[in-house]
Amino acid sequence: MHIGLVGLGRMGSNMRTRLRDHHITVTGFDKNPDVTDVATLKDLVKAIPAPRIVWVMVPAGDITHSVVTELAGLLDKGDLIIDGGNSRFTEDARHGVLADKHGVGFMDAGVSGGVWGLANGYGLMVGGSDEHVERAMPIFDALRPEGPREEGFVHVGPVGAGHYAKMVHNGIEYGIMQSFAEGYELLDTREDLIKDVTGTFKAWQRGTVVRSWLLELLVRALEQDPEFEEIEGYVDDSGEGRWTLEEAIDHAVPMPVISASIFARFVSRQGDESPAMKAVAALRHQFGGHAVKKSD
Amino acid sequence: MHIGLVGLGRMGSNMRTRLRDHHITVTGFDKNPDVTDVATLKDLVKAIPAPRIVWVMVPAGDITHSVVTELAGLLDKGDLIIDGGNSRFTEDARHGVLADKHGVGFMDAGVSGGVWGLANGYGLMVGGSDEHVERAMPIFDALRPEGPREEGFVHVGPVGAGHYAKMVHNGIEYGIMQSFAEGYELLDTREDLIKDVTGTFKAWQRGTVVRSWLLELLVRALEQDPEFEEIEGYVDDSGEGRWTLEEAIDHAVPMPVISASIFARFVSRQGDESPAMKAVAALRHQFGGHAVKKSD
Amino acid sequence: MHIGLVGLGRMGSNMRTRLRDHHITVTGFDKNPDVTDVATLKDLVKAIPAPRIVWVMVPAGDITHSVVTELAGLLDKGDLIIDGGNSRFTEDARHGVLADKHGVGFMDAGVSGGVWGLANGYGLMVGGSDEHVERAMPIFDALRPEGPREEGFVHVGPVGAGHYAKMVHNGIEYGIMQSFAEGYELLDTREDLIKDVTGTFKAWQRGTVVRSWLLELLVRALEQDPEFEEIEGYVDDSGEGRWTLEEAIDHAVPMPVISASIFARFVSRQGDESPAMKAVAALRHQFGGHAVKKSD
Amino acid sequence: MHIGLVGLGRMGSNMRTRLRDHHITVTGFDKNPDVTDVATLKDLVKAIPAPRIVWVMVPAGDITHSVVTELAGLLDKGDLIIDGGNSRFTEDARHGVLADKHGVGFMDAGVSGGVWGLANGYGLMVGGSDEHVERAMPIFDALRPEGPREEGFVHVGPVGAGHYAKMVHNGIEYGIMQSFAEGYELLDTREDLIKDVTGTFKAWQRGTVVRSWLLELLVRALEQDPEFEEIEGYVDDSGEGRWTLEEAIDHAVPMPVISASIFARFVSRQGDESPAMKAVAALRHQFGGHAVKKSD
Repeated sequence: MHIGLVGLGRMGSNMRTRLRDHHITVTGFDKNPDVTDVATLKDLVKAIPAPRIVWVMVPAGDITHSVVTELAGLLDKGDLIIDGGNSRFTEDARHGVLADKHGVGFMDAGVSGGVWGLANGYGLMVGGSDEHVERAMPIFDALRPEGPREEGFVHVGPVGAGHYAKMVHNGIEYGIMQSFAEGYELLDTREDLIKDVTGTFKAWQRGTVVRSWLLELLVRALEQDPEFEEIEGYVDDSGEGRWTLEEAIDHAVPMPVISASIFARFVSRQGDESPAMKAVAALRHQFGGHAVKKSD
Repeated sequence: MHIGLVGLGRMGSNMRTRLRDHHITVTGFDKNPDVTDVATLKDLVKAIPAPRIVWVMVPAGDITHSVVTELAGLLDKGDLIIDGGNSRFTEDARHGVLADKHGVGFMDAGVSGGVWGLANGYGLMVGGSDEHVERAMPIFDALRPEGPREEGFVHVGPVGAGHYAKMVHNGIEYGIMQSFAEGYELLDTREDLIKDVTGTFKAWQRGTVVRSWLLELLVRALEQDPEFEEIEGYVDDSGEGRWTLEEAIDHAVPMPVISASIFARFVSRQGDESPAMKAVAALRHQFGGHAVKKSD
Repeated sequence: MHIGLVGLGRMGSNMRTRLRDHHITVTGFDKNPDVTDVATLKDLVKAIPAPRIVWVMVPAGDITHSVVTELAGLLDKGDLIIDGGNSRFTEDARHGVLADKHGVGFMDAGVSGGVWGLANGYGLMVGGSDEHVERAMPIFDALRPEGPREEGFVHVGPVGAGHYAKMVHNGIEYGIMQSFAEGYELLDTREDLIKDVTGTFKAWQRGTVVRSWLLELLVRALEQDPEFEEIEGYVDDSGEGRWTLEEAIDHAVPMPVISASIFARFVSRQGDESPAMKAVAALRHQFGGHAVKKSD
Repeated sequence: MHIGLVGLGRMGSNMRTRLRDHHITVTGFDKNPDVTDVATLKDLVKAIPAPRIVWVMVPAGDITHSVVTELAGLLDKGDLIIDGGNSRFTEDARHGVLADKHGVGFMDAGVSGGVWGLANGYGLMVGGSDEHVERAMPIFDALRPEGPREEGFVHVGPVGAGHYAKMVHNGIEYGIMQSFAEGYELLDTREDLIKDVTGTFKAWQRGTVVRSWLLELLVRALEQDPEFEEIEGYVDDSGEGRWTLEEAIDHAVPMPVISASIFARFVSRQGDESPAMKAVAALRHQFGGHAVKKSD
């Protein structure tokens, strides 16, 4: 099999490597001349055999939209675009329609695994027709982890369902990370009693209920910097968590934990400049004469 | 009526003034010679007619405990101690027993109103026997706001019930303050659309569902410093909120809003030094190679 | 002044009454022949003098949209539409553009006060141009509560700002209601200690920090049904809370309390059919052999 | 090595089996004559060689306290008690003192793994002196999972530290379970788009960020009952979560996610009988005339 791959950043170039390692021929395109295999998208289309499959791995939003739009124009009837980026699931429906106008197929693939995917394989959740899924299966089999297919790959539903499942996956991920983080903070606070915080997390890796990959990563992080002295408590968020929460609101699904995880990140970026907490400080001062901390 | 008052800090001295204004004779004692009326607790006991009533208005915890203990020893059978401070309700039961050993009565009084109580009167919630409540009623009538007694005073139940009600009052207060604060932050964030934040809060004072005394205080605060430029988003908490939450946990009462208000205060005091958020930042870095903010 | 009023449901007919009581002539239109003053929207437009003002008070969403669209077509250049319903602020921009194509002005007015507004006046938050606000001021003055104008009325900003402020108002309202509700539940749970729950809320009406209109309503409700025996713990939500939360997410504003209030309502409608809690029960059973409650 | 084991319920009898499988001789005592090896605690003490080690595996609270008290009286100087139950860490200090009065040593061991521990081994977190830990190491090595010792066992700190770590472990566990549960509910709600909910969770088992033992258990549960039709959304809690939260409150550690997980369980047991939500429903009715659901 010989496919096209658009986007050769950290994720895309790792995927190119893994695909090639699994005997998929890949022609990659990127605006960065140092990493690209061809000069233009048009060249990419020419380089791969029809019926073509092009995997798109570029930043979600405007860039994905313009790449899909351009590709749909360049490809021929019967070709297939797979958006493997972090697009919002609502984008997929319109990309499906857009591609379909050119007789081009469209699938979405949610991809999990981060920088570890190159070695371990990527967890894959895809949305699209049965026919398209079947056609692209050699790609999915190359990218997914070793082991039974159904433990690292799922055809979730029609176009959009793959990114939807990935979105929810990331929402859950936020909640799990925050759970470990809150437990860490409590252990760290009781240094009078807890003499080995890193050792405690380390010992949870076998036999316990909380054993998990995120726990293993936390152990790695603690072994590198046991007191997290080198980093600030400042955490970005990348969209999927917010979208999960918005979906929950739209469908009246209670989401106290995932929302709290997201809000904790928002707060982490405010330092002592939270307008809300300034308002609370001001209120306490008004009714109780409680002291406020003056800004410098 | 002539009573004793122990503790002449901001709250105690305001109460002395309000009681005197309402024709209650008050002999006050404080360790601070500048404000006290008598030199010692013993002198206070001598100065007031039996059967005596002594109102205790000192910091909760050890100080209240030692004052109640000493007073119980000095007072005569049939005298009455009223703890008007912010004691935890669990303290009241043991103070009741302690006083009772000397034949001395004991009541607890939760007091709300802060620095405004001198002028407006104090909201009062008391715990104790019917007989003691009746005996102390002239004091309560002097301290409570003008208007029907039942709108500013309640006999909540036996000893401890007054402080319990005050504790819950403060838990609710935390939730209301945080509600306004979150709304404020959102309005403040949308300066592209919301051209008059202060004016909006001001306009909510009549006719709306959220009209309240805390809203009026927020308007005052905003009029003094519309962008809260002079204060930091750093908020202490004074115990009652935590006790409310502990009671909720003990009795399996869900308390998502009041707990969130308390946690928001905890976070406000951490700045960018939150151990939990450092852990989340470290985790993101581990799996996704996401950048972390390095400490200086 | 003589204006048109479209929508004579509970809110609209109350407003018609209040406007007439304040010497504004009102021609009302409603699809319900029992309450309408004219037979058609066209008749309404004919009945009122140019430059016309028409206040729209119909359900948010499709109905408001179709009424505004139809009105914009019927009205003349220089006329003015005011949407006083609960429209999402994002609707206002497009209604403004739509009206402007016909040379018709557009304003949005957030209205608070519910069934009490007829007697007490309505809290008003409006969005639009200075010129339009000035023209409609006699209406606002008639609808708003007695007292200084700025304590019951605000010109928040351009078109959309009025509904935005009302949306945030309702988000805050959710948080305050939940705060009182959590406190109520705790007091209610401790019937061993708290002998007068209703009396406690009643006594908070003067002097305390939590005194507020919602507290007064809670006292009324408790006096009518002290144990809430006649109602279920089932609570709807009407949109503004969700929109507030979505705005918070979009702008990275932490909103732990308002979100928790909304989720509590979502949960209240699930009874024992929460899919999430079924999943937790199933998980506990898997790892610990903990008993689950079997469905009937 | 030959030790005593008190308590042969589900956990205790599994541990006896695993210890024997690993060549530790175990004399077990239980009040249930069908499972006990000896008739009385006194017989247990006689049956095992000095210096003795007795592992206590009985319900936390009063029962553990009375067993430890009785054992301390029966044992000889130099013997060692290990409390492997779910005691609150605050109990350990007083049990240590109590045992010490008899010259008997005391350790606490937090044990994770549930019904799966027999086959997989138990995650162990222990508190006590270095000397006691070393003496009991053959027991820990028999109980813990295969693999490096430090990945299934930790000496956390002095007496109490083991149960403390286990308590935090369970708090984290609550948060992770709720995270998955919220994600499940959202996927389940979108049955228009998500055509294979079970398959989605199944596919997350390899390569993804959320892969974990709890995920595997969720897959098992979904495979047994894909819609959770046989169980109610009713979830108990067993103490450790509450204790974690109380510790967080005491030490001003923000814990929005773990608290939300616990409150979700509290709510799950209320059905439509939540006093708080009745209060909210009553309030909405008061100000807006919103309909309430009448109780039957």
